[in-house]
Parts: sequence; structure tokens; C-alpha cells
Amino acid sequence: MKSVISVDIPQNPYDVVIAQDAIDHVGAWLSNHEQPLVKPGQKLLVVSNPVIFRHYGDRLVQSLESVGYQVSTCILPAGERYKTLRSIQKIHDAAYDAKLERKSAMVALGGGVIGDMTGFAAATWLRGIGVIQVPTSLLAMVDASIGGKTGVNHPQGKNLIGAFHQPKLVVIDPQVLKTLPPREFRAGMAEVIKYGVIWDAELFAALEQTDRLDQYRYVEGELLQMILTRSCQAKAEVVAQDEKESGLRAILNYGHTIGHAVESATGYRVVNHGEAVAIGMVAAGKLATALNLWSRDDDQRQYQLIEKTKLPTAIPSQAGAEALIALLQGDKKVEDGRVRFILPKAIADVFITDQVSNQDIRPVLAAMTTP
Amino acid sequence: MKSVISVDIPQNPYDVVIAQDAIDHVGAWLSNHEQPLVKPGQKLLVVSNPVIFRHYGDRLVQSLESVGYQVSTCILPAGERYKTLRSIQKIHDAAYDAKLERKSAMVALGGGVIGDMTGFAAATWLRGIGVIQVPTSLLAMVDASIGGKTGVNHPQGKNLIGAFHQPKLVVIDPQVLKTLPPREFRAGMAEVIKYGVIWDAELFAALEQTDRLDQYRYVEGELLQMILTRSCQAKAEVVAQDEKESGLRAILNYGHTIGHAVESATGYRVVNHGEAVAIGMVAAGKLATALNLWSRDDDQRQYQLIEKTKLPTAIPSQAGAEALIALLQGDKKVEDGRVRFILPKAIADVFITDQVSNQDIRPVLAAMTTP
Ligand SMILES: NC(=O)c1ccc[n+]([C@@H]2O[C@H](COP(=O)([O-])OP(=O)(O)OC[C@H]3O[C@@H](n4cnc5c(N)ncnc54)[C@H](O)[C@@H]3O)[C@@H](O)[C@H]2O)c1
Ligand SMILES: NC(=O)c1ccc[n+]([C@@H]2O[C@H](COP(=O)([O-])OP(=O)(O)OC[C@H]3O[C@@H](n4cnc5c(N)ncnc54)[C@H](O)[C@@H]3O)[C@@H](O)[C@H]2O)c1
Ligand SMILES: [Zn+2]
Ligand SMILES: [Zn+2]
Repeated sequence: MKSVISVDIPQNPYDVVIAQDAIDHVGAWLSNHEQPLVKPGQKLLVVSNPVIFRHYGDRLVQSLESVGYQVSTCILPAGERYKTLRSIQKIHDAAYDAKLERKSAMVALGGGVIGDMTGFAAATWLRGIGVIQVPTSLLAMVDASIGGKTGVNHPQGKNLIGAFHQPKLVVIDPQVLKTLPPREFRAGMAEVIKYGVIWDAELFAALEQTDRLDQYRYVEGELLQMILTRSCQAKAEVVAQDEKESGLRAILNYGHTIGHAVESATGYRVVNHGEAVAIGMVAAGKLATALNLWSRDDDQRQYQLIEKTKLPTAIPSQAGAEALIALLQGDKKVEDGRVRFILPKAIADVFITDQVSNQDIRPVLAAMTTP
Repeated sequence: MKSVISVDIPQNPYDVVIAQDAIDHVGAWLSNHEQPLVKPGQKLLVVSNPVIFRHYGDRLVQSLESVGYQVSTCILPAGERYKTLRSIQKIHDAAYDAKLERKSAMVALGGGVIGDMTGFAAATWLRGIGVIQVPTSLLAMVDASIGGKTGVNHPQGKNLIGAFHQPKLVVIDPQVLKTLPPREFRAGMAEVIKYGVIWDAELFAALEQTDRLDQYRYVEGELLQMILTRSCQAKAEVVAQDEKESGLRAILNYGHTIGHAVESATGYRVVNHGEAVAIGMVAAGKLATALNLWSRDDDQRQYQLIEKTKLPTAIPSQAGAEALIALLQGDKKVEDGRVRFILPKAIADVFITDQVSNQDIRPVLAAMTTP
């Protein structure tokens, strides 16, 4: 099984390859083009964290060296709290030590944290060298590795520092998800459900037909290949139409408006990103239902998918409705003081609106708050 | 007198406006487009250094506020040694405090150091917000402010960290050069002479007809307006044809190959950048003459312009020929181990070659070294 999705970004098109044992073929795929994506003999800097590198580092390095690349590594501590400019400096130092040149590249082996940092370090080294994404978390596979958003956190806020920098290639090996902690797997599945709701009714239907969605072992094999392929295809289509988020790309923030507020209100300690998105999708669904914009039936179908993935559907008690509303007002996505919501109309059909008032939001949040 | 040069970079075209008292009109020009470059009412962060801000800050801020922008400032210490990621963090902190949004912008008021840093901070805040360049040194006017190269230094090397980020507008007020230290003025003039040699024979001829080129007061007025206009036009034409330096843009490095080596060999303390470029142009001219690629007469004409500007023409005794050759081998512009030179064939006609051997270079450097 091998799927190849093209991300048709004008000027910077690239492929997402999804295949079993892909990790052993990265070197071949990088070098085996008529125009090799990176010239064999060139230098590659692999960036990862200790856990992931221990699992998959040797195989990746071996695959790269076997076709003649000169490989160096930069291993950073794991965790979102290391997603800082300080870590970028460490990658830059490693790039300097490895004597990377304009035609060298970096390879991100890890989840979204490693992917975002490596992408940003590559975007800013010698004014931009190539980056290859080898995502190892479900979230990074279906979301973070595609679309060229890269960056780090500012002490005062997430992802405030960054740049757009498209990868040269994204390589996905579904089997690495075997070692991903189950909670991280479910978090990624929240984004998969999102693609079903905003873009792909067949994906949505396929997810509905599955008994369980909460663990790797229930979906591995063909089903997982299909889930990854359709999710990456959805993301690829959206970003190809709107690379820099001037319009359409905003729909990828479905579930994220309230989701971000929940993450922030609970100090990023109670729910992870995917869980927050799940809660945000439930809220968006309820809001759309209350405004008579979509059917109670579709809302129910979305809700059941989220439940089946064992993702949370209620707002944690630590986050009060009024605190959430205040946070929504301070959100990056606010334009001219109005909160922008992505709301569903039907499965695979959402729209962007700034016509939602606090009076509309308040009862939805109240109903979802665990007492 | 007002010249407007368009920099026709695909996707990101912008204007360079050169006019007397331009500093008082930046606000008007930003807002007075059918599509304002930055919407009045938006936030602008002016970045400068204490010396320059003392001279021109009030006028610029006044011009911006008078048309309704909300202006904040970020004043960084002067000097190349502050061109670091640390300063970028300070600009980011100021951007956070000023609550800049995606449609806000930064305004660089200063020489190339402030321009490069502000451009890079804007490139990396919220994945890229607008930047307006108001260059105040001659070098920044004719070179650094145009073309979108932005960045900072790595502890191990100049400009290793950076990004391409085109400005929305470049505003040049020639009269601010009155306060520029004369040595900085001459440094900028080296780049002006460079444009004459690589691109614009009429500019070259006009410079030849001038008695003195070493101080602002000998060129101010119409002559200066013409020098700035033709220099910016040259830079604009080159970068419009090759935004990311994949080919043609390399000719802008005329005089810079050996120039960089001289700067580096003398620890960036003996000659400044423009002086190094002057020395580099003399060396390139002598090299081309020795290889019978251009005429002794043209070489003499170039030499006289450099002398008339009171720029150095000899290699400082601190830099030995062998040390320079070693540095050339380590230069960023080396590809596959060969040094790339830009050599002149005639006035306004240069070419790129990697066919120059160390045997060719050695006698030229020896002849230019002050004993
Ligand atoms: N660039 C984008 O478009 C985009 C989109 C969404 C999210 N993000 C960013 O992605 C980050 C979140 O990504 P994430 O959820 O992958 O987090 P993460 O990178 O922190 O990975 C989650 C955890 O799983 C571990 N892990 C990853 N793969 C593993 C594997 N195969 N085996 C064992 N352990 C593994 C990691 O070490 C980490 O502890 C956030 O910083 C977010 O801002 C970026
Ligand atoms: N981005 C590019 O394409 C590009 C091109 C060339 C150079 N550069 C960069 O530009 C920098 C050099 O620029 P620079 O020569 O302007 O140096 P600079 O910015 O340090 O300015 C030189 C000195 O002149 C002072 N000054 C500037 N304008 C003044 C004025 N009007 N009145 C009084 N004092 C004034 C400054 O405070 C400083 O002390 C380097 O860092 C170089 O890497 C960038
Ligand atoms: Zn997300
Ligand atoms: Zn220069």
C-alpha cells in the first residue's frame, strides 16, 4: 500500500507519501527523482527528540546514508515547552557545525513540535534551506507536516513566532503510530474527524462505520492507510487553494476557536490540543444547531464520532464560560474586534462567520460545562 | 524632485519613493493608496536606534500619527554587534506589547542593521507581517532596503540567520544623509560605484563627471537624487529578475567575494563593508585585466572612481594573501568547492565564473597588499 498526494502549492508543489516501512525509504525517495529533491552527497541534518530517535532514528539515518547523504543529527528535549527560539538556536548551531549549505536540508523526525521547529530553523538558516517532514504522531501526519506553517512559541503566546516554509517532501510511515501514546493518538484523531466534518463526507462515513477509533490497533492496516490518505488529501486541497490563510484555509480552524480558549483557560495542562479541538467541535455543532444552521441529526452524528474516539465532549470545570468568552475576544483570529467562527451547515460543508454574539455562545458553553 | 521606482517582484511588487522631506510623508504614502498599504487606524511599530531616532524619530512618528496610525516604538542599541536573535526577541516583545495583528506592520528607521533586523522580525511575527523600510544610511538606501533579504548574525558568521521578506514600501529621504558619518557615506558610495560597473553605464559616466564623491555636501541636490534613483533602479531590476538569488542576483556580489575575505581577515575592525567592497572591486578589476577579460582602460576608470571617493584600494597589512585565499575557500558562495567570482568585461557588463584558480588570485592579492 502506497499513497502519494500532491500538495499543489504554486511555486512550491510537493508530495506526501504514505506507505508501510516508509521510514526505510526516505533516502531513496529523496534521491530517486529525475531532479533529486536533495542531491546525493549533500548534507542532511536530522532533528528529533530522544524518545522518537531511539525508536526510529537508526532506520532513518541508515536509509539516508545508504544513498550517499552525509547525515548529522540534532536531538532536542521532548515537549511543547521546548518549542522556543532557544531550541531554534540549537538547531542553527548544529547546522553551522554540520556546515550545511544552501542545497543541504533538514529532516524533521517527530511530532508537530519537532516538525514546527525544524521547519522554522530551515526557513531561517541561510535565508531558507530545504526541509523534509517525517511526522511520527498522528496529529503531525494529518495536520502539522503539511501546509508549511512553521514556528515556535513566544513566552506570551503559542506560535506567535514563525514563517511559512513548505517542505520538499512529507513521508508518512503509519506503523510508527504503534509506539505513539494512546492519548496522543486520540488527539490526532480529533483532526481526522475535523476533516470529515469540514471537507470529506466519505471519510466521515467511513469513520462512522468503524467500531472503535480510540487506539492504533483498531484501525491499523488498510483502514488507517485510508484515514491518513483522505485526511492528508483534505489538508493538501485546502492549503493549495490558500497557502497563506487569507480565506479558505481558515476552515481548518474548525473546532479551534473555542478549542484554543479551552486550552488556554486550563493553562494547557488539563486537555491537550486534540482534546480541546474535540470540545471545540462539539461547541461549534451545538452553536450551529441553536442558530438553526445545521440539523440536530448531523450534530448527533458528529458527537457520536467524537465519543467513539473517547475524546472529551464537555468543558473541564477549571474553565468558566465567562473566562472563555474573554479569551475568545483576545484570540489571534479576531478581526476588528469580532470573533470569527467556523460553523457547520452539513457534513463536509462549513462556513466562516463573524455574526455570532456572546449571547449565542453563553448558553452553549454553560450547557457544556461540567458542574 | 520625486522618483518612484517599482520593484516588480512577482506576487510582491512594491515602490521605492525617493523625495525631499520624504520622512514627513511616510504616513500619507502608506495610507493614500486606493488600497492603503496599511489601513489607517492600524498599529505600526517603529524600530530604530537612539542616534537615528533622536534625529528623525519625531518627524516620522508625527507623519504616521497624523493620518491615524497607532504608533509604538522599539529602540535598540546601535551597532552591528547587536544584530542578533536577542534583538529580534526584543522586537517581538515590543510587537506583543503593542498588540500587533496580522494587518499591522513594522517600520524600520535606520541603516542596514536596523533594516535587516526589522525585516526579519516582521518576517517571523505571526508568520509574517508587513514591513516598511525607511533607510537612513546611503548603503541601506541603495542596497539593504531593497530586495527583501533580512536577517541577523550567528555567533559564528554574518547573516547566517534570515529570511526573504519583501517590504511593502521603501521611502528614501536623501537629506537625512546630512547627519550620516562621512565614512559611512563613502561606504555606501562603494555600492553606488558597483551599480555603475555591473549595470548602468550612464550612472558610471555621471559619477566620472563629478569632481568629488566622498562627502554628502559635494553631491547633495539633483546629483544625489539621480545617484539614488539609478542605484535603486539597478538593484530593483536585478532582484525583480531573481528574487531568491538563484542566478542573476549573484552579480550584486561584485567586489564582495574578496571584500568579504578582507573584512573577515581583519576581524571586521579595520575596514567597513563598503571599504572592503571597494578593495574587492579593485581586486576583481585587476584579476579580469590579468586574465585579459577587460581592458586596462576600463580598469583604470573604475580605479579612479574609487580613489575619488577616498575609498581604500589596497589590502590592509593585517590580511595576508594566503589567509585571504583560505577564507575564500570557506565562503558561503562556494559551490562544490569552487570559488565563484563576478568579473567585469566592460563598464556595465559583468559575468559569473568559477574558473578562477588560486594561481590567478595570488599575484593580484600580493600586488594589492600594503607592505
Ligand atoms: N504547523 C502546523 O500546521 C501545525 C498544525 C497543528 C499543530 N501544530 C503544532 O504541533 C504541535 C503538536 O504536535 P504533536 O501533537 O505531534 O505533539 P508532539 O510533537 O509534542 O508529540 C506528542 C508526543 O508524542 C511523542 N511521539 C511522537 N511520535 C511518537 C511515536 N511515533 N512514538 C512514540 N512517541 C511519539 C512525542 O515525543 C511527544 O511526547 C504543537 O506545537 C502545535 O502547535 C502545528
Ligand atoms: N539586506 C540586504 O540586502 C543588505 C545589503 C547590504 C548590507 N546589509 C546589511 O546592512 C548592514 C550595514 O548597513 P549600514 O552600513 O547602514 O550600517 P548601520 O545600520 O550600522 O549604519 C551605520 C551607522 O550609521 C548610523 N546612521 C545611519 N543613518 C544615519 C543618519 N542618517 N544619521 C546619522 N547616523 C546614521 C548608524 O546608527 C550606524 O552607527 C550590515 O549588517 C549588512 O549585513 C544588508
Ligand atoms: Zn489543530
Ligand atoms: Zn554590499
